[in-house]
Amino acid sequence: MQEPWSLTASEAASLIKTGGLTVEAYARSLLTRIKDRDASVKAWAYLDPELVLCRARELDLTPVEQRGPLHGVAIGVKDIMLTKDMPTQHNSPIYASDTAGTVDAAPIIALRAAGALIFGKTTTTEFAASTQGGYHQNHTSNAHDFKRTPGGSSSGSAAAVGAFQVPIALGTQTAGSIIRPGSFNGIYAFKPTWGAISREGLAQCSITCDTVGFFARSVADFELMASVFRIVDDESRPAEQSFSLQGAKIGFCKTPTWPHAGPGTVAAWEKAQLLLRSNGAVVEDVQLPKDFDRVADWHEKVLASEGRSSFFGNYLLGKDMMHETMTGYVENEKGFSRKQYLEAYDGCARLRPVLDDIIGRYDAVITPSVIDEAPIGLESTGSAALCLMWTIMHVPCVNLPGFAGENSMPIGLTLVKPRYHDISALHISKAIGRVFDAEGGWRTQQIRS
Amino acid sequence: MQEPWSLTASEAASLIKTGGLTVEAYARSLLTRIKDRDASVKAWAYLDPELVLCRARELDLTPVEQRGPLHGVAIGVKDIMLTKDMPTQHNSPIYASDTAGTVDAAPIIALRAAGALIFGKTTTTEFAASTQGGYHQNHTSNAHDFKRTPGGSSSGSAAAVGAFQVPIALGTQTAGSIIRPGSFNGIYAFKPTWGAISREGLAQCSITCDTVGFFARSVADFELMASVFRIVDDESRPAEQSFSLQGAKIGFCKTPTWPHAGPGTVAAWEKAQLLLRSNGAVVEDVQLPKDFDRVADWHEKVLASEGRSSFFGNYLLGKDMMHETMTGYVENEKGFSRKQYLEAYDGCARLRPVLDDIIGRYDAVITPSVIDEAPIGLESTGSAALCLMWTIMHVPCVNLPGFAGENSMPIGLTLVKPRYHDISALHISKAIGRVFDAEGGWRTQQIRS
Repeated sequence: MQEPWSLTASEAASLIKTGGLTVEAYARSLLTRIKDRDASVKAWAYLDPELVLCRARELDLTPVEQRGPLHGVAIGVKDIMLTKDMPTQHNSPIYASDTAGTVDAAPIIALRAAGALIFGKTTTTEFAASTQGGYHQNHTSNAHDFKRTPGGSSSGSAAAVGAFQVPIALGTQTAGSIIRPGSFNGIYAFKPTWGAISREGLAQCSITCDTVGFFARSVADFELMASVFRIVDDESRPAEQSFSLQGAKIGFCKTPTWPHAGPGTVAAWEKAQLLLRSNGAVVEDVQLPKDFDRVADWHEKVLASEGRSSFFGNYLLGKDMMHETMTGYVENEKGFSRKQYLEAYDGCARLRPVLDDIIGRYDAVITPSVIDEAPIGLESTGSAALCLMWTIMHVPCVNLPGFAGENSMPIGLTLVKPRYHDISALHISKAIGRVFDAEGGWRTQQIRS
Repeated sequence: MQEPWSLTASEAASLIKTGGLTVEAYARSLLTRIKDRDASVKAWAYLDPELVLCRARELDLTPVEQRGPLHGVAIGVKDIMLTKDMPTQHNSPIYASDTAGTVDAAPIIALRAAGALIFGKTTTTEFAASTQGGYHQNHTSNAHDFKRTPGGSSSGSAAAVGAFQVPIALGTQTAGSIIRPGSFNGIYAFKPTWGAISREGLAQCSITCDTVGFFARSVADFELMASVFRIVDDESRPAEQSFSLQGAKIGFCKTPTWPHAGPGTVAAWEKAQLLLRSNGAVVEDVQLPKDFDRVADWHEKVLASEGRSSFFGNYLLGKDMMHETMTGYVENEKGFSRKQYLEAYDGCARLRPVLDDIIGRYDAVITPSVIDEAPIGLESTGSAALCLMWTIMHVPCVNLPGFAGENSMPIGLTLVKPRYHDISALHISKAIGRVFDAEGGWRTQQIRS
């Protein structure tokens, strides 16, 4: 039998359902994997093996007719989401002595109700807001090269999934905190449409941008998550077999920040076009109107201005223990006016339906995920320059791994669809992901020790 | 000496600061007032006199140089905000056994840091979302007539302030949950610009509309709050003396839902214009473009669609214990499509700068707060028809009490300004509120037993 730790969430759920695996045996396999490999990755902010096993045994005792669709599936949770049996520390010294909470964040409530085994809390950059190690160093390593960053802010979630420590983990994205670590760790990453999943019980950074999402090693796992969270499109999709790349119209949108792209992403971009064309797709360049040149600047202003109120309480609790990114927001270091904020907020709002319309003309649009491979060093978690536009535009994004850079580290590309075309995005991601995975140069299911 | 329970927040803060009152004596006065009067009002979901006195004594021991601007000021907290020393029950049987939490919601962190005495948790309609008594009956009464509703969803906060049980209390507004109970209880109510105060740690209903705000018996108390939360406009306002109603240009905007207005609001509307004119103001009707006719419908679609994800977790925990408003959202009972949601969301976004521009042409714009006096009966908390537009438009609103209806119950009108003109809104509210209070027929500082 395949080692349980190597299973995807869908595979594990299926095996547990059919009696081929107990939740306890599954949990023990994951715990062993973590024990063997996590000393280098350091993906966990909180992990209590006894608690995990206790919950696993409870789940094994749940009568079959009461079991949910995620029964026994192990899920890592970014440490900015409240959990009733584990502390929530935000990688902040202000919350270093936090104890087990009394409430679950909304996504955790839904996952537990579906039978998930909430495994532990994964590392994050401080309050999921800074990219630099500040007061608290970022210690987590990339799943595939311990000298490199896993990306952030959802560092531990991406690294744990990339290192086969859990099949699925929760992240949040305000600029590029799901897509970037997804790309850096060679796994799939899914940022649903803004608002599709409740953020109640999560740390707040930017109310306009913060979005809950997932990491996994297969698109099918995201379909399982979308089903659990009842994310549906207006039009129900045809069966999987009905989507074919043959004749499909795929847009390639470089976005105004494309000049940031490094050789790895440029090579992936070209290879992706070749692969899609050779599979029968029609590939076209997507040009965005001039107004979109302003989105990166607007995004910065929205984050800074909304961060001003988001971090205010914690600033009062302990500004000396806070990274300067956040104290800078609260103190409005850059001097952004309310007028500038509203121009940015309203400007983005105005462009959302424009973007939906443009990308809606294609079966899917491909865009860059990252500048290049994960950089060496753990100090910085890398740049979100190439993916932040899609966050503030609220559209669903899927990082499709499959390519490799000059150092054989993974590089992904992002598939986007108009807002609330999440299920369609997953459906097409499956088909395109299969091609990239088979022929792009990076195998998502490969296991590097 | 004036009874401490009758003081405004600013007065109490000043008296405590100058040594004229200890926090413990102040707390005892409020507790006595509550003991004497709350049997009829029932404003509190959780109130532990021992905990209050314990915290009061701690505050009395705080060295003078470490005291904040709210030192000792008693504040009621709507029971949908997490508090680390008190349970948060959301008026839901799902959370009926909730114990004291381990974290404070962001606004509570800021208030405690400023020295506030967090007094207790005030009643709310279920998850601040339904207007009807559902599974959980609404028990709270109007501060001025126990047979009448205090309004909702911030029922207890408004009733407690109206009944002189605390000088200030926190509420939230998604449709009319601050302005309406403010009007019904004859007190000032302030909904700042959306986003000015963090919602981290609060129950989520509509991410686009939910806004944190305050109840008080004086506008000066809101200025104190705005200062504590560092809410600032781009332009710092001239000193108070510099605003005069003489020659001021005041718009009166009936909004497209004006046909809902009852005789009490119609009379207040006419009296307000007379009073402002007799004080030298130029009063003009404000007409909104045709597009604004759609906002009430859009608001309904935004609430229902965002409620679909907001209440999903709790729905899974116990849909049989949930009011049908919320199960209806989760089940999308009205069958709103994603397309309809996005049209509503984008439509409102498009109108926000248009509205800012229109109301920005006046020193202030007055709009109705409510249909009429608080209706008899506690089952329904009344209608938000006349104030919901301003919530989804994100503009700052201040309920100015001062008028009385056919049954001598209070009726207020709302002052609005463009987004992020909060301080200016308070500044002008002070001047206009003074006129309404003196000559409108309702005295905010009057105490009915």
